[in-house]
Amino acid sequence: MDWKPNRHAVISIHRQITDRIKALIERGDWSTDMRIPPQRKLAEEFGVNRSTIQTALDELKADGYLEGRVGSGIYVTGNAWNLLMDQARPNWQRHIETGVHKPNYHTIQLINDYEQKDDIIRLGTGELSPDLLPARELEESLRSITLDARAIGYSSPQGSIKLREALSARLEKRGITVSSDNILIVSGALQALQLIAVGLLEEGATVFQEGPSYLNSVHPFQSAGMRMQAVNRAETLSSTIRSLKGQSLFYCVPTLNNPTGYSWTVEEKKSFYTLCRDARIPIIEDDVYQELQFGEGSPPLKAMDEAGHVLYLGSVSKTLSPGLRIGWIVAPTPVIKRLADIKMQTDYGSSAFSQEIVAHWMMSGRYDRHVERLRTRLQERAERMEKILLRQYQDIATWNRPSGGFYIWIRFHAPIVNKALFLKALQRKVLLNPGYIYDPGDAHHIRLSFAYASLDEMEIGLHQLRKIIEERRDAP
Amino acid sequence: MDWKPNRHAVISIHRQITDRIKALIERGDWSTDMRIPPQRKLAEEFGVNRSTIQTALDELKADGYLEGRVGSGIYVTGNAWNLLMDQARPNWQRHIETGVHKPNYHTIQLINDYEQKDDIIRLGTGELSPDLLPARELEESLRSITLDARAIGYSSPQGSIKLREALSARLEKRGITVSSDNILIVSGALQALQLIAVGLLEEGATVFQEGPSYLNSVHPFQSAGMRMQAVNRAETLSSTIRSLKGQSLFYCVPTLNNPTGYSWTVEEKKSFYTLCRDARIPIIEDDVYQELQFGEGSPPLKAMDEAGHVLYLGSVSKTLSPGLRIGWIVAPTPVIKRLADIKMQTDYGSSAFSQEIVAHWMMSGRYDRHVERLRTRLQERAERMEKILLRQYQDIATWNRPSGGFYIWIRFHAPIVNKALFLKALQRKVLLNPGYIYDPGDAHHIRLSFAYASLDEMEIGLHQLRKIIEERRDAP
Repeated sequence: MDWKPNRHAVISIHRQITDRIKALIERGDWSTDMRIPPQRKLAEEFGVNRSTIQTALDELKADGYLEGRVGSGIYVTGNAWNLLMDQARPNWQRHIETGVHKPNYHTIQLINDYEQKDDIIRLGTGELSPDLLPARELEESLRSITLDARAIGYSSPQGSIKLREALSARLEKRGITVSSDNILIVSGALQALQLIAVGLLEEGATVFQEGPSYLNSVHPFQSAGMRMQAVNRAETLSSTIRSLKGQSLFYCVPTLNNPTGYSWTVEEKKSFYTLCRDARIPIIEDDVYQELQFGEGSPPLKAMDEAGHVLYLGSVSKTLSPGLRIGWIVAPTPVIKRLADIKMQTDYGSSAFSQEIVAHWMMSGRYDRHVERLRTRLQERAERMEKILLRQYQDIATWNRPSGGFYIWIRFHAPIVNKALFLKALQRKVLLNPGYIYDPGDAHHIRLSFAYASLDEMEIGLHQLRKIIEERRDAP
Repeated sequence: MDWKPNRHAVISIHRQITDRIKALIERGDWSTDMRIPPQRKLAEEFGVNRSTIQTALDELKADGYLEGRVGSGIYVTGNAWNLLMDQARPNWQRHIETGVHKPNYHTIQLINDYEQKDDIIRLGTGELSPDLLPARELEESLRSITLDARAIGYSSPQGSIKLREALSARLEKRGITVSSDNILIVSGALQALQLIAVGLLEEGATVFQEGPSYLNSVHPFQSAGMRMQAVNRAETLSSTIRSLKGQSLFYCVPTLNNPTGYSWTVEEKKSFYTLCRDARIPIIEDDVYQELQFGEGSPPLKAMDEAGHVLYLGSVSKTLSPGLRIGWIVAPTPVIKRLADIKMQTDYGSSAFSQEIVAHWMMSGRYDRHVERLRTRLQERAERMEKILLRQYQDIATWNRPSGGFYIWIRFHAPIVNKALFLKALQRKVLLNPGYIYDPGDAHHIRLSFAYASLDEMEIGLHQLRKIIEERRDAP
């Protein structure tokens, strides 16, 4: 939408605008029953006065293309297309509204949208900052990659054997002994969850998750008709299980949780594993932060799993580059075969080029060297963020010292974290990940990330946030 | 499964085998209620006599790990896990059977499996042969690619703007005028269908398709709960539409159809488009073979579409490399926004590396040069295949001379194309794409592809097939 009226044209500005809007309706970009953007926004976009927009819209209303609806703005009429030409055309808006898939929550959509903008300080973004991504080394590594014609055709259902073998060797080091037959390459851990949702669970099955959970910000299971149920690990799990009917699964991030950043102790992991195993509740262990532990670290649940009870998820999105879109599922072979079949029916496998690149990085040692450097730099960033917090937030919030990964789950004493705060911060160009997207009832937490914003942005963004909190407290 | 017993070990071969099988059960690779592979196959895999397998299985049955079921082989018992240790474990088989997604048809699964094997002649494969894939040039092009740190992070919802702009310019040349806002990058055309299925249609909606249809070999719509209905284009469409209730969509491949290879004439395209538009039935135009027309070629439906009525699909899988997993949807912006939102919820976008490579190929002119060479080579292959057919099949079958793409849809006079023929050919290491996977009632056609098999393989494979057909005719 970078169209602007031509000020030197013979046709009046106002006429150019009505023509433009008719064209948008004609092309279907503005479809039947769609609410059009507010006048303020149109005026800004077209670079004209609001009164010019007003006149143009009034005319289009009079002609029956648009209609006002009380208290809710201006809409494209059901008849607009017929007016424009003697042709029927599809009602895309209706198609969109009745689609099977649920629309994303509004805050999450805003986060997705604002993450595309350049002048926003992103205090919660769960990605590596551009300067932590090894762009130069990746570029350089492309020069050492050799492509086999077979490797660039359609992938085998489970993904590149070279990559699966490299992974099998890496997993061994973390105490997970599996062969390449137990591994399925996927396009990131989110796709893994999608495949598990449609491939292994019946509609109405229960998916357990921890209190605040990453799963509330994405909807692979809800979209497939599963019920989500939050449980606080061991404490309530036993009693919940007893009353459970039908299939269930437990989704967890035991190491460097998203959003809380906490890792369970080895004892907690053991007792949780035993509990689920005895109750015959399979576990999805999302372990994408495993390699980002600052200290010695704690092993994955999967390393304790002799019974094929854990579906284990990993990815290079948090360590190397999310743009590669490469993750993996480790599971018993019948599960892998089933999920591979669905993956083939979904997208015919993941990018062969991405798979070649990851295999090359793992086999050449580049990956290990990079992850080691990355850990050091993340730790520096974590310390920096903590220093700012100690200086500016100690009186109004608490938090745990991060032991790895990306996040600090900061808890405000007062229940101030709501959509109004989120929007206020957005107005000041600070993008937050408020706790309520991970736990709908939460008004105390924000997920801070020390991985994305630059050090200067951290300083400015946290300072702004503190100011906003004070203003809101002082407001009548 | 590359395990073999150690012939020099102290433990007997037969004991090593029972231990191995217990381990498979323990790890969950052989799960409760799973049917185990036939004895013949196990003997082959472990490199031992069938009698050794028999003894081992008998012992495992006696111990309660396995059980025979009348007429259907040997299964892992429900109790096997409990026997192995005092632990419960998940019943993966039950999870698999109750999953929402339908399992792939058996023939299609066999095709997917056998396409992974090396010593098979693939007479129907819808891919470019390894020697038609520009592996060397792709490798070389990697050396000219520069990576921007922002480009290797998470993708923007619609995909790389560079690639979308390159596509918008290419589409213009085919008569399709759209901006980058009307384009969504996806991981191949199959994913496009998945997104449309869950994003734009309600459950129970009708998806129309032509008689034999590629859609019968993949199940994006069926899996999302849509009804498929075959119609023979204009002839029956009008009357069908009148009795239609609820939402519908028409899926078609008007240019170089898969599996038939036919292209509609410009007049057929026009009248079909008008019919659907007037009936308000949106069209999905799958146009992945557009650039592989040998002659002057015919334009896409989308070029006639001023009304935003056609969802247009393209891809580089048939022209450059399926391993890139890059395709696109062209549609009105509200549709694109909706599908982009679902794509983000599904896999967070397509590989940024693949997108960079395709953008580079399109912008540098490499792509056009390559496609031109490819067309010439496909035409040579088509002529070669036709020559063989003329020599060996003229008395038993008819076919149309191909005008591009990959396929010859050969029709046998007698209804001989059934699963038995497919399996017989497979035994002789010839893999066919029988007509019934595209039209369940069809017993006359085979989809031949001149794109995959080498010229020698074409000769040998078609000769084998002719022999098999004769043997079956002569058999009592």
